Amino acid sequence: MNKEMILAKQKQAVEILNEKDIDMWLTFVRETGNIQDPMMDMIVGTGATWHSAFIITRSGDTTAVIGSLEEANMKSVGTFQNIVPYLKGIKEDLLKVLDKYQPNKIAVNYSRNSSLADGLTHGCYLELMEILKDTPYKDRLVSSEDIVSALRGRKNQIEVDQIKSAIVETLKIFDEVTGFLAVGKSEKDVAEFVRNIVKERGFEFAWDEEHCPAVFTGPDTAGAHSGPTDRKIEPGHVINMDFGIKYNGYCSDLQRTWYVLKEGETEAPETVIKGFNVIRDSIQLAAKELKPGKLGWEIDNVARNYITENGYDEYPHGLGHQVGRVAHDGGALLGPRWERYGNIPYIPVEVGNVFTIEPRLTIDGYGIATIEEIVWVTEDGCEFMSTPQTEIYLVK
Amino acid sequence: MNKEMILAKQKQAVEILNEKDIDMWLTFVRETGNIQDPMMDMIVGTGATWHSAFIITRSGDTTAVIGSLEEANMKSVGTFQNIVPYLKGIKEDLLKVLDKYQPNKIAVNYSRNSSLADGLTHGCYLELMEILKDTPYKDRLVSSEDIVSALRGRKNQIEVDQIKSAIVETLKIFDEVTGFLAVGKSEKDVAEFVRNIVKERGFEFAWDEEHCPAVFTGPDTAGAHSGPTDRKIEPGHVINMDFGIKYNGYCSDLQRTWYVLKEGETEAPETVIKGFNVIRDSIQLAAKELKPGKLGWEIDNVARNYITENGYDEYPHGLGHQVGRVAHDGGALLGPRWERYGNIPYIPVEVGNVFTIEPRLTIDGYGIATIEEIVWVTEDGCEFMSTPQTEIYLVK
Repeated sequence: MNKEMILAKQKQAVEILNEKDIDMWLTFVRETGNIQDPMMDMIVGTGATWHSAFIITRSGDTTAVIGSLEEANMKSVGTFQNIVPYLKGIKEDLLKVLDKYQPNKIAVNYSRNSSLADGLTHGCYLELMEILKDTPYKDRLVSSEDIVSALRGRKNQIEVDQIKSAIVETLKIFDEVTGFLAVGKSEKDVAEFVRNIVKERGFEFAWDEEHCPAVFTGPDTAGAHSGPTDRKIEPGHVINMDFGIKYNGYCSDLQRTWYVLKEGETEAPETVIKGFNVIRDSIQLAAKELKPGKLGWEIDNVARNYITENGYDEYPHGLGHQVGRVAHDGGALLGPRWERYGNIPYIPVEVGNVFTIEPRLTIDGYGIATIEEIVWVTEDGCEFMSTPQTEIYLVK
Repeated sequence: MNKEMILAKQKQAVEILNEKDIDMWLTFVRETGNIQDPMMDMIVGTGATWHSAFIITRSGDTTAVIGSLEEANMKSVGTFQNIVPYLKGIKEDLLKVLDKYQPNKIAVNYSRNSSLADGLTHGCYLELMEILKDTPYKDRLVSSEDIVSALRGRKNQIEVDQIKSAIVETLKIFDEVTGFLAVGKSEKDVAEFVRNIVKERGFEFAWDEEHCPAVFTGPDTAGAHSGPTDRKIEPGHVINMDFGIKYNGYCSDLQRTWYVLKEGETEAPETVIKGFNVIRDSIQLAAKELKPGKLGWEIDNVARNYITENGYDEYPHGLGHQVGRVAHDGGALLGPRWERYGNIPYIPVEVGNVFTIEPRLTIDGYGIATIEEIVWVTEDGCEFMSTPQTEIYLVK
């Protein structure tokens, strides 16, 4: 919990409320130990057991309506100006706060498009509607999607620095992996090597440990989003690893590709080099187009077309997502206009957004080439936060 | 991820579906790395990135409709019989599965009463309704509250054994704390001592680390649900600690009370002993009444009345909750009939339920006396799983 960071993001939220013409942002939760609204750690900094309302108004006021047993904790956390403790039920106190501000538009955390703006469970939604049913506020709820998207997407300098630190530490580990890879070691061996480093250095995993890192060696691997297997590294394999850490609350998410030399080889076969280079170049081409105001699908299209024009299948996922406090941070996504991505490929890119760029292609008979870099959107383009991989790494 | 345990709980879920006359249980999720339905680790055993449906039918079939990139992972996890991967959108494949079974009642995870049965976010609910809108299934959704409550509440022998192991390890740590406590040490010192042990031994915390353990020394402390402070232990303080670990996927949650002797004292003052003993005895009285068929509020009432009859204020919370894969597990709660607890104090106690019993009272001028034990409901009563604290521990 970094109090200064939370207060800075609350202040930014107030600016966004004014920009989007929304009077109040209401984060309504309970039992966050069981299921946690993803916005809690960015704007509250602690959990809640009983029904609780964390309220930010466009006037800049912050009010927490919470169970009385959590009053002392909330005070010591110190992120909300007004703390309203209740003993038996939240309704009366919550309505008093609403009546004080009489908001015309109240954003709450539900969204079909963004899981990060969708922390309000359906049961809590029904509970909230029950509380509001005899008031005018019941018809004034709107999705907080735009607020969450802007607040998470527009990284401030401290956030960018934190992500940068996570990237630097992650790339060090990739270098160590290059030294560790050898014929006969399994995907699981490699994953264990990486996980031990993460634990020794006191980092967290950017996503669930069973798939972090994900390691794939050779042709016919399990493919993305799968855990490492007992499959062993062999000469002629293309290896790739998808890995990220969480460090001081912010994540990295990177991929690198290696080739395992066969006896007598001093470099990768031409077909492997070609595949790798197509991926590498598609990233640069996409990054050149990435700037504020562009739509995510336009950027995805650049890399996707370049890859298919070079005779490879298109990758079965989006080109890149935002990273932040979680590995898959959002709003805007550099993704294709597919049903499963909803409206998020249509959200304009903004200054301060931090994106991965991670195309992939299959090199028949060898394995999967994939590189994942991280870039930061500036006023008129983007900057690489990771030092790009320019050549396929060789394993002797 | 323990595959055998998941298959055992799925089997139990099928029995419960038949008992409750529900045709299908549909767990509908996405981006579980950002917000995770609390049922996922009990009945699925892995996460999901894209919209995914995990379906259990009363006939005993299990089907996972998932994004194609996660097919290999789902196969390797091996907890679902049928795996239906989709590329661009879930709708078509999900409707095919529904049409195959034509369920009349479909339980989904929303609940006003139980956070553990409320993993469906409101945005995902809207998405699901959009998918179902032109089908008869849209009017066939019911809350999975009863299923979740029974499935989590009715512990099988393996689960009881796991909780027992967590309790044994936790009580060892409490013993070590007794040796560590001394005048001049702060609440934070004690918490750090405990956290280091937890990490050394490879346990997880049963709840968020900032409040696990919670340590309170002396009068006028921050009270429950607050993190440890710089407040120092002094002679004449009553100290209590609330602490639990997660060990092999199951939690403990226990509290113990100490008294810090003043110079010349060889035992605690009478008023302290009286307060402690009232708590101790209230637990035994409540446990005597605890058996299948009782309602939670009836058990809460026993301890609450005994404490107020002895001249103390009633505790501002429920007497006890269930423990399991999370520290606050449920269904049924041994809680008072207060608005904030909804219907859960009215759910009948069942065989196999594992409850904490944790009353508290304030000993004026000394601190808070609180003991938390864990009991397991049997055919005709309950058994203590923790060895009860019978006398206040003394710190010299």
